[in-house]
Amino acid sequence: MTYSELSELIFRKQSYLCVGLDTDPRKLPTHLLGESDPVFTFNKAIIDATADLTVAYKPNLAFYEAQGPRGWESLQKTLDYLPADCFTIADAKRGDIGNTSGLYARTFFDPTAAGLHFDSVTVAPYMGQDSVMPFLDYNHKWVILLALTSNPGSADFQRQPVAEQELFEVVIETAQTWVGPDHHERLMFVVGATQADELTRIRALAPKNFLLVPGVGAQGGSLTDVSRYGLTPDGGLLVNASRNILYASSGADFAERARAEAQSLQRQMAEHLATLP
Amino acid sequence: MTYSELSELIFRKQSYLCVGLDTDPRKLPTHLLGESDPVFTFNKAIIDATADLTVAYKPNLAFYEAQGPRGWESLQKTLDYLPADCFTIADAKRGDIGNTSGLYARTFFDPTAAGLHFDSVTVAPYMGQDSVMPFLDYNHKWVILLALTSNPGSADFQRQPVAEQELFEVVIETAQTWVGPDHHERLMFVVGATQADELTRIRALAPKNFLLVPGVGAQGGSLTDVSRYGLTPDGGLLVNASRNILYASSGADFAERARAEAQSLQRQMAEHLATLP
Repeated sequence: MTYSELSELIFRKQSYLCVGLDTDPRKLPTHLLGESDPVFTFNKAIIDATADLTVAYKPNLAFYEAQGPRGWESLQKTLDYLPADCFTIADAKRGDIGNTSGLYARTFFDPTAAGLHFDSVTVAPYMGQDSVMPFLDYNHKWVILLALTSNPGSADFQRQPVAEQELFEVVIETAQTWVGPDHHERLMFVVGATQADELTRIRALAPKNFLLVPGVGAQGGSLTDVSRYGLTPDGGLLVNASRNILYASSGADFAERARAEAQSLQRQMAEHLATLP
Repeated sequence: MTYSELSELIFRKQSYLCVGLDTDPRKLPTHLLGESDPVFTFNKAIIDATADLTVAYKPNLAFYEAQGPRGWESLQKTLDYLPADCFTIADAKRGDIGNTSGLYARTFFDPTAAGLHFDSVTVAPYMGQDSVMPFLDYNHKWVILLALTSNPGSADFQRQPVAEQELFEVVIETAQTWVGPDHHERLMFVVGATQADELTRIRALAPKNFLLVPGVGAQGGSLTDVSRYGLTPDGGLLVNASRNILYASSGADFAERARAEAQSLQRQMAEHLATLP
């Protein structure tokens, strides 16, 4: 999916909601446990209930890997089931030396390898340029680079002062130089920031890049502030919610309640989009 | 495996060799391609040929994931086949917010999850303390934290000046404070450094921690310098070789040639160990 396609999708669906498919087999409604692949059955119901309100889906790889080969099969089926008008994110936080990153890219992008065909993958920047570029060697595929994450540990290194900046700002600036002038086309940043001054600083460094914001819902964070300081004329935001949607109910009405949660977020997003010039 | 068990293993086998099982199905000897699981058959032969010369095996997850569910099955079988007197490393470079890192830890450490039971996993530090600690919640399991990697991109962020140090030095110092006074017991660092002054600086910061050095062989680097400046009275080093051993020959003699390569490294290591006070 291209930058302009993603942008169009946001305005058509009036939403920049990303649903995090952090599907934990231990949290599934009990009536699904008799299914042959309860994780896929659950994901299918969540997708059916939310697809018209959602621009992106983000399976978190850890939840699938923890099931071994069976989990990878659930992941493949989930990805195949996702509608074409949704952006897909492998939330995998990968990053290794060049030839290994190349294999991770093949895993997530090339369906002839592991049966996966994500639009994008989250990448950890610590190993630098040659650990990131192999993901961008795939046309039309995106890197979503960790910049400022939303967890307490983000203070340990990301906020270390480097010259006049903090490390995450160096990451945002440097990564753009790797990709060239159209870097915003396929380079997105994970930004857990929800405070006005942080978002303002980040937008100054990356005025057009999409930001993936994981901080709404279980991880805290205000949709209003994120939208006010993060939205751009192209949209420029994907705001993720996982647990609040997936586990809105543990009963037979789980999909219906998931839709209600997604709809509430989508309606707020439509209001924020209406304020754009 | 405990610190003292790993140390004993090094002196008993007179080796600190780690064999990287970066098994690429596209590089296997052609006579193996008819096997039902050529990757496992290859790994089995490499392990049989090198186990007495090797203290650690390090499957690189990217090579297995790129095969999808089938790759995970090859990985499970390989891990089950490894002899008990070898330290096992999941080279996965994981790291995410706390609950997700907890799931990755379960994946690699708890055999009831994905069928895996590694001794250790490589972890990327960018997301800080709460992304690392869930791996240490498992007794007797180790974290191998990326500090200074051996690839060109290590210059981008790891060598950024932070106060009077470089970022990788802050990582080494800070991570030790997370774990407490016996941090060396289960905290290892990935150090691609092969230069005397770098290793000397790192040893000053981490005098007892094991260092996993990936830089010998295909990635360049001198075993003599690494050994001279990296060895400690407990051993304190694991030096990895992958491609030089795995692909020493592409013919029917691949295992025999792999053994010869491993033996050459082991003999040099025995000489370096003999110089310890």
